[in-house]
Amino acid sequence: MRVALTMGDPAGIGPEVIAKALPLIVTECEPVLVGLPGLFNESINRYAKLREDDPARRVEVVMPSGVVDPAVETDPAPAFDLATRGRLQTAFIRAAVAMAMDRKVDAVVTGPITKEALDAAGIDFPGHTEMIADLCGIPTPVMMLAGPKLRVVPLTIHMALRDVPDVLTRALVETRIRILDRDLRRYFGLETPRIALTGLNPHAGEGGMFGTEEIDVLAPCVASLRKEGIEITGPYPADTIFVRAVAGDFDVVVAPTHDQALIPLKLLHFDEGVNVTLGLPIIRTSPDHGTAPDIAGQGVASPTSMIAAVRMAMQMARAAGLTV
Amino acid sequence: MRVALTMGDPAGIGPEVIAKALPLIVTECEPVLVGLPGLFNESINRYAKLREDDPARRVEVVMPSGVVDPAVETDPAPAFDLATRGRLQTAFIRAAVAMAMDRKVDAVVTGPITKEALDAAGIDFPGHTEMIADLCGIPTPVMMLAGPKLRVVPLTIHMALRDVPDVLTRALVETRIRILDRDLRRYFGLETPRIALTGLNPHAGEGGMFGTEEIDVLAPCVASLRKEGIEITGPYPADTIFVRAVAGDFDVVVAPTHDQALIPLKLLHFDEGVNVTLGLPIIRTSPDHGTAPDIAGQGVASPTSMIAAVRMAMQMARAAGLTV
Repeated sequence: MRVALTMGDPAGIGPEVIAKALPLIVTECEPVLVGLPGLFNESINRYAKLREDDPARRVEVVMPSGVVDPAVETDPAPAFDLATRGRLQTAFIRAAVAMAMDRKVDAVVTGPITKEALDAAGIDFPGHTEMIADLCGIPTPVMMLAGPKLRVVPLTIHMALRDVPDVLTRALVETRIRILDRDLRRYFGLETPRIALTGLNPHAGEGGMFGTEEIDVLAPCVASLRKEGIEITGPYPADTIFVRAVAGDFDVVVAPTHDQALIPLKLLHFDEGVNVTLGLPIIRTSPDHGTAPDIAGQGVASPTSMIAAVRMAMQMARAAGLTV
Repeated sequence: MRVALTMGDPAGIGPEVIAKALPLIVTECEPVLVGLPGLFNESINRYAKLREDDPARRVEVVMPSGVVDPAVETDPAPAFDLATRGRLQTAFIRAAVAMAMDRKVDAVVTGPITKEALDAAGIDFPGHTEMIADLCGIPTPVMMLAGPKLRVVPLTIHMALRDVPDVLTRALVETRIRILDRDLRRYFGLETPRIALTGLNPHAGEGGMFGTEEIDVLAPCVASLRKEGIEITGPYPADTIFVRAVAGDFDVVVAPTHDQALIPLKLLHFDEGVNVTLGLPIIRTSPDHGTAPDIAGQGVASPTSMIAAVRMAMQMARAAGLTV
């Protein structure tokens, strides 16, 4: 099994967590590192603590050509302005997605990127997920966060909370839940995924007293999706449903807002959560943390989430019967 | 120490959890039960499993006069329509709050009520907290949910999510946080409460990319409150701050929406969370659960949260140097 790992922002903790994860990962799959060869080698020397004969020393590194000067590609400690970091992190993603689309790797695991660097480079995506979906020609990526005890899907992600009620249409909700249902069957080995939908409003609107989106949008979505054979229930009050999911009543909880979904996930799985993009023609996961500029270069970053992301990508590929 | 416990909705689990809690509570304080004497006695006989000489048998029961027929007051298994339940649960609260205002009890712990019953009785409050604040003549009650590991305050509670961004003014935020700071000092023995404020939007707005309420409202509130000597920081992304609070970095997390605050609290403290109303001239707590009509009368309700609510009320009274 071949898994591409992108460096992410060269100035973040991506190179460090990949280097720390590498000795373990290399025993489980054939990793392909996508990023700056000089910085990857330096990070591996510094953080991976390899023996002379460790197979991690022979891992393939792919560098997209023409993004920076070749001398910089092999620089062990390059320094870049924000725009160059934005171009580099994007080039790594493009290269890895292209490899996956061409079936040269089974899955892509992406290192964390910096959104401000995308802006500085004039690359107009609110985040990783949207960029990868665009590269794959997919209009509706579905972000799922998964840990050992809980899986969650926010129906909206990178937008102002003020805009969520109007964005939350039946088409948006139903499209995402169909993709979720299909991909939980395909990639997670669930015969009939049990999906819980939360309300948008406090107490799921308390019968229309605190908002009507549950009555007007969410309950009709549930009724309609159930007729299609999808095992979805709700809308439930968001504040009490996650305990039931953790107890095993549901395979995934879908929530209208970013924070409704991510707060419980990160509380339970701060270090071991994995971000999965569903609805793509390729398998893509990433660690559930950012570039952590406050600790980059200090050697204290944990590779736990990166390791979990690689393992989940491999499990997804196996469940789907894929291998290059 | 005298603590008034209101029955709540007679058709809910209030009588049962109070009866189950009573043998323990009566060893720690002097409880005053406010509700239907017949139903309380029946519940105590059924659920409290008392010896002949148990002091819980001699607990004082107060019944507000004129709400129902005296024969019904002593009925061990009365049946009421929704409007009568609404009038009864309201009368119990009125009586208990009046006792606390008159300093005849040190604190009030309220059993769960049914909002639909309030509506049926023509009593126009969205919830318990708002009704008690009104009885005390207080315009701005502050709801705090507290468990052993986490305290949270939602800045808005019983309203549609759509309305939250416009309701979230500097005056609303600053008023509530001043009350919170004062009452954490007064009732919880914290010399300088460490208050974390979360953003409204995903990633706390990501520098204005996903909403501007953090820049326009929340950050100025933090700056202004800090000048007053309040140890508040933020606005932080809501999805990652609760782990830090649980680790001990903060005494309380304040969040703009109901679900941002209640999701992590109920995930960590499903059975032992306590609802505290701050900003009142009296001490009021309640268990952090509803009337649970699905299990009422079955004898399976847990008194854990009710016991925790009584103990927290007593701790608050002690910290404030109050006793009748």
